[in-house]
This record gives sequence, structure tokens and C-alpha cells, in this order.
Amino acid sequence: MCPTNNPKLTSWVDVSPECEFPIQNLPYGVFQLGDAPPAVGVAIGEFVLDLAALHASGKFSGTSIAADNIFAAASLNGFMGKGRQAWTDVRDRISELLRKNNATIRDDKELRQQVLIPSSDVRMLMPVAIGDFTDFYSSKHHATNVGTMFRDASNPLLPNWLHLPVGYHGRSGTVFVSGVDIHRPNGQLKPDDNAPPIFGPSRLLDFELEIGFIVGAPNEAGHRIEINQAAQHIFGMVLVNDWSARDIQKWEYVPLGPFLGKSFATSISPWVVTLDALEPFRVPSPVQEPDVLPYLKTAAPWGLDIRLEAFVQSAKMSEPMKLTSTNFKHMYWTIVQQLAHHTVNGTAMRVGDLCGSGTVSGPTEDARGCMLEICWKGTKPITLPDGDQRRFFADGDTVTLRGASHGEGYRIGFGEVSATILPAVS
Amino acid sequence: MCPTNNPKLTSWVDVSPECEFPIQNLPYGVFQLGDAPPAVGVAIGEFVLDLAALHASGKFSGTSIAADNIFAAASLNGFMGKGRQAWTDVRDRISELLRKNNATIRDDKELRQQVLIPSSDVRMLMPVAIGDFTDFYSSKHHATNVGTMFRDASNPLLPNWLHLPVGYHGRSGTVFVSGVDIHRPNGQLKPDDNAPPIFGPSRLLDFELEIGFIVGAPNEAGHRIEINQAAQHIFGMVLVNDWSARDIQKWEYVPLGPFLGKSFATSISPWVVTLDALEPFRVPSPVQEPDVLPYLKTAAPWGLDIRLEAFVQSAKMSEPMKLTSTNFKHMYWTIVQQLAHHTVNGTAMRVGDLCGSGTVSGPTEDARGCMLEICWKGTKPITLPDGDQRRFFADGDTVTLRGASHGEGYRIGFGEVSATILPAVS
Repeated sequence: MCPTNNPKLTSWVDVSPECEFPIQNLPYGVFQLGDAPPAVGVAIGEFVLDLAALHASGKFSGTSIAADNIFAAASLNGFMGKGRQAWTDVRDRISELLRKNNATIRDDKELRQQVLIPSSDVRMLMPVAIGDFTDFYSSKHHATNVGTMFRDASNPLLPNWLHLPVGYHGRSGTVFVSGVDIHRPNGQLKPDDNAPPIFGPSRLLDFELEIGFIVGAPNEAGHRIEINQAAQHIFGMVLVNDWSARDIQKWEYVPLGPFLGKSFATSISPWVVTLDALEPFRVPSPVQEPDVLPYLKTAAPWGLDIRLEAFVQSAKMSEPMKLTSTNFKHMYWTIVQQLAHHTVNGTAMRVGDLCGSGTVSGPTEDARGCMLEICWKGTKPITLPDGDQRRFFADGDTVTLRGASHGEGYRIGFGEVSATILPAVS
Repeated sequence: MCPTNNPKLTSWVDVSPECEFPIQNLPYGVFQLGDAPPAVGVAIGEFVLDLAALHASGKFSGTSIAADNIFAAASLNGFMGKGRQAWTDVRDRISELLRKNNATIRDDKELRQQVLIPSSDVRMLMPVAIGDFTDFYSSKHHATNVGTMFRDASNPLLPNWLHLPVGYHGRSGTVFVSGVDIHRPNGQLKPDDNAPPIFGPSRLLDFELEIGFIVGAPNEAGHRIEINQAAQHIFGMVLVNDWSARDIQKWEYVPLGPFLGKSFATSISPWVVTLDALEPFRVPSPVQEPDVLPYLKTAAPWGLDIRLEAFVQSAKMSEPMKLTSTNFKHMYWTIVQQLAHHTVNGTAMRVGDLCGSGTVSGPTEDARGCMLEICWKGTKPITLPDGDQRRFFADGDTVTLRGASHGEGYRIGFGEVSATILPAVS
């Protein structure tokens, strides 16, 4: 195990056992303090460590990124683009500086005040300038549920599903960071199969509980990323809410796939949890039968044990209500399989590309990752504490996703992605 | 008619009647001369007018873009982002400076040598930093041919096709400028319906003859672009070759649409022909029956009379052979309908977003825009001059698209997009 992942490590920054940002995590984000320029930071306990200020103070001297202050930037792309060695160097250095016995920042009051900012004082921005956004469809439970509802309960999976991680391109320009509220989309709807389509606000607005990985190291056009090299190209992961208007999607999606039913908005969490921090939580992924083609085979396990939850809070509710609890370890297709498949045709990935997992549904009814499944096509509405019902979301509902990997006495958390649904613009 | 479009205008730069870049055109591109930094230029006759140098010489003083030299840049995005008034100002100024009777550059030998560079001396680069790449499916002839081949000849169009411009998101990171050669993609293929998929190079590599428009003015998330405002947001158009691996596509595309069958590469022409230059070539588009929803209705005609051709040249051939001739005016869905539909759900467009038309096929057999249709699913191979046959493309084939609108005694050309197919990387 990498020393930075040692469960026994503690920091001089106070971190409670329930806190999602202990010294083993060190997720990266982009923050803004008042009107100051945006900068890259790392979450530690209830603070943000300002890496731009830390770099300016010379604390990255001797590392591979000493020359340029790549942290004085509005995205992680410059840092990610330096490559895996830089990612390791920086993680090692930050981990050292934050350890209980390291006096460098701890005992330098001026420096400490300069680089350690209370999280409540800052505004989190989009962490990454996303190139392309791909969304996969990698939960067998989700694909089975959808196939059962809309196609054939006795044969719910399409023929290709068990042979390749099905995916499609989403819209990168409408990926928003947590806290940016989302207008209900308008569009063509066809509520009556025997009448022409009508125009209006979506009536079936849904979420999809996902995690996405961010590509940090590119590949050359025409040359694929081998599956055993895939992890070298993945910088980290974020929570993803792939907002979906089921009625727009249903009418438009044949034969070229989802378009306006998804393109209006996707929300992500502001903290990027590195693959390095998630390393201790690798677990075997589900057995794949039939056997996959060699380019999708990996000896090492690449399931990830990340607990995921979704919550809804209507405008009338005083606190959120849990919608579902699931786990990323149930995903049939792993992130390294996704990246190997994505590039097997020579597709060039860029620094900052985002690949969503698809809805993370688990094997049980209470582990379903979208309203379509939770309320089973609207046939099993849920009741909110105030007696209101939901089949899909109403204007004013706030939807929040959370996720964390749980170790012995600590957790590696993603924080949250949260957004409120605003009425459609008329 | 706008004065810059007057067919009688002539330039002191020599332009032959067959040349695609007369003073009525003035397309924008990004060029590089030797090791000098990239800059924005305009094509005029056999020359490139260096707008960065022209700006530096003060020749844009008094216009809305006088303050910053937005042309000293590696993309058109900075210029486009200044908005439609700037587009008009710059076109007006360039048109004036290039007119036969204008002595400003014509008679200033030093300036002329500085700003007017022979096209053969420069390398053309990607004109635009593309945000998202959308591809539509807007030719009724193409959709009908595909539906006839793969679904039902008596009912080839899917139910949604006549109600909305079907589209999907492609991959912006693999859009390459003309001249960048393309590796044949590897992928999962399923040549035998009754056997498992196999892995290997695509055997059915195809092109799609398209035009794409480039968004130059953004809209706010949640707020659509009204159809009668759509043209205010469109900067210009490029030729698009939407490379397609039909065998990869066929196996993967249900239910989420084309992915690796398209994502390896898309080629575009280096010159962006402005919507202003195409204004005289607006023609009525095909009658739409059934009637479309109000948000897709426009009083003004938005068909565009642009003749399009595709050519192939194998490694053994000494000159290209024509594959097809078609016309953009046959498109059922217009560019303003595409943009109005794309944003009707509140999708935010960014400066530099590219929207492809989909394959431009005409009503006749000799006006089909891809090999799938030209060779009718491989059943009608074409014979090259040396006796070789093609159902799809072979390694070493060079595919070239050309396009132009023809006026009285002049033409508004797109130049070409051309690329050679390299063998798959093993």
C-alpha cells in the first residue's frame, strides 16, 4: 500500500472520524475566495488547502511541478496534464506537509493562515475544463430493470450488452458544478401514442446516480490505451447526476440515442477524488459471463467499493429524504474496461475528458439509482414526509447525491453534488 | 442585399472566375507560416490575408474590435465571441480594403507583402476550438435509404423523423482539419449473426458527406434560441466528413446510438464560410408535411443552395474519381430548425460548437452521400479506373469533399476536406 493511504496516518488539521476529507483522501478542486482569482485546492477536514499559495511559498520545490505554479488556475487541467509522476509527487508532498509530525505549515502561523482556508468561506467552481463527456450504461441491474420495463422481462438485455460497455457521448458544455440550479427542460413530448407530439415542459424529470472518471493523461489518435495501462490515464473521480427528461428521451432517442432528454444539464461534485486515494477500495467486480474479448480482460480487480446515496428535499421539506443507497462495486463493467473500450478504435482522449458510469443500481429494490426504477415507471410512487407523492421530480425539489468509501476508522468521501430544479423557462 | 455580397464587386487581388475565394466569399481560417505563431486569415484568390498583421497595422481602427488583436490567435473563437456586430464590422472592413478601387493595401507595397501571403506557403490549422460536436440526420433521402436498407422499405422513416431534426452528440476531441490522415479503427465486429463478436480492423469504413455550422454567439442555460434569432447565433459553415465504421456501428449502436463507429475521427475543411457570404444562396427548403410544431416554424426560407461533391483516389490512382454530386438544398431540416430544436430544452451553446447536418443525400441515385448508400449495402460495388472495386474504403484511399454555391460569374467555395486512410494500428 502506498504510504499516503496508510489508515493510521493522522494530520495536525483536526479531522473527525465522520469527515469525508481525512489525510488519506486529499481530493482536488477549484475554489474561489471572494473576488480573488480561482485556484486549485485540496480538501482537508473542514479546510481547503490553497495549493496556489503553497506553491508560491516554495513548498513544491524539488518536485516535478516546481517550475510553474499550475495551481494558480481555474481548472485542474494544467496540473493533470503534467502526468502521473506529477500526480504522485504532489500527493506525496501534500500528505507529508499535513502529517501530524510535520511542522512546516503547522508551526508557521503566517503560512498556515495563508494556505489553510475554512471551507465555509470559499465558493467551489467547476474543477475541470471538460473536453468530451461520455456516458456509459454499465450497471447490469439498471440495464436489466430498464429492459424489463420497456422491452421484454424474459430477455431484458440487448445482445451487445454483455460483450461491451455500451456508451454514448453526452454534452460537455452543460456539465455544471454542484450548486448550479437546473431549469426543467421544454421539449417535444408524446404522451398519447395515437396523437401527434406536443410541446411543453418535461413531465418526467429524473436523476441518474453515477460516478464519472476524469482522464488526466491523453493518448495519441489511432493508438488505444491498453487495459493494463488504463489506470495510468485516470486522474480521479467525481459524483455525477445525469439529469434525464424521460418523456423527451423516449420520443427522440431512436435510432441515434439520447439527445435533448439529457443535454440540458449534468451536475458533478466539486471535489475530484484521486484514483490513488481509492486504491485501498479496489474489489473484485462481478463475474463476466460470457467471457469478454481479450482487450477487455484484466487480471487485477477493478471494482470499487464506494457507497452511494441519493436524497430529495422538496421546497416544503425541512430536511432531505433518502431515495436510495447503492454501491459502485455492483457495476458490471469497470472503469478500466470503459477506458480500454473507449479507445480501442483509436479515439484520442484529452486531459479533462469525463466518462460517466451510467446509473449505478444495485441488486435490491432499495438500491436503484433513478426515479424511473425506484418508482418503476411511475407505478410505485414514493411518499414524502409531508404526504406529497413523487413519481418524478417537481419544481423546487433539491436532489443531492453523496458517496464515500469506508475504511477502518476513516472514510474517503466525495462530498456531494446537489442542485434544485427551477421551473421551465416559458 | 448586403453590399459585401454584390456580384459585381471585384478585388485588386487577382481572382479567376473558377476560384472559390472571390471578394464576395471572405472565409475565415487559422494559418501558420513556417514557425510563426498561428493567426486568423481570410482567403482571397490564391492568397491568405493575414488579419493579425492587418490588425497590428491599425487597419481595424474605428471598428468594434479595434482594442484587442483577436486575430493573433490559434482559433476563431475570440473573434466569434465578439458577436454579430463585430462579424459585420470586420467583413465590411475587409471587403472595403480588398476592393479594386481601394488603395490602402493595394498601393502600399510593404504592407501588402506583410499581409498578403500566397496560400501555397501556409499550413492551415483547425479553425475553431470546438466545444461540443453535434451531428444531425436531416436528409430525408438519406434517412429513407437507410431505413429501406435496414428496416422496412414500405415504411422507412421512424415515427419521430418528420417531427423533429433527429441528432446526437459526436466527439469534439477527434475533429481534425483537412490533411490529417485517419487510422482505420479497430473494434468489435459481428460479421456472423450466430457467432460471438470478434475483434479487428473495421471492414466497412465509410464517409459521410456533410456540412456543419459553427455557433458564434452563445445562449444562456435554460433559455432557448428562437428560430427567428437562430441565424444571429450562427457564424459560418464548414465541410464535414463524418467517418463511419459501419460494422462497429451496427453492433454497438442499440440503444444509445453511434459511439466508437464514429468517435475515432471527423474531418472538417479549414475555411469557415460565413453565413453572410451564403446569404444570396438561401432558397426554399422542402415542404414539411406533417406540419411542424410552432417552435420549428420560420417564415423566411433557410434552404441553402450549395453544390457538394465527393471524390476517392486510391494509392494506385493518379487522379481522384468522383463518387457523388449532391446539393445541400435538398435537406429536409434547415440549420435554423436544427439550432432552434437543439436549444429548445435550454441547452446552452458555446462559441465554437459544431453542428453537422448528417449525410447530404439528394433525390437521385447519383446524389447519395455515403458508400453505404452509393454501393447500396455493398450490393452495387463501384469500379475504379484501374479496375479495382470498392464497396467501402481501402487503406491508402484518399477521400475528398468539395462544396460551393454558384452565383452569376462567381462562386462561394468551401475549398476541400481531404484525408487518407492509414492502416489500423495493430
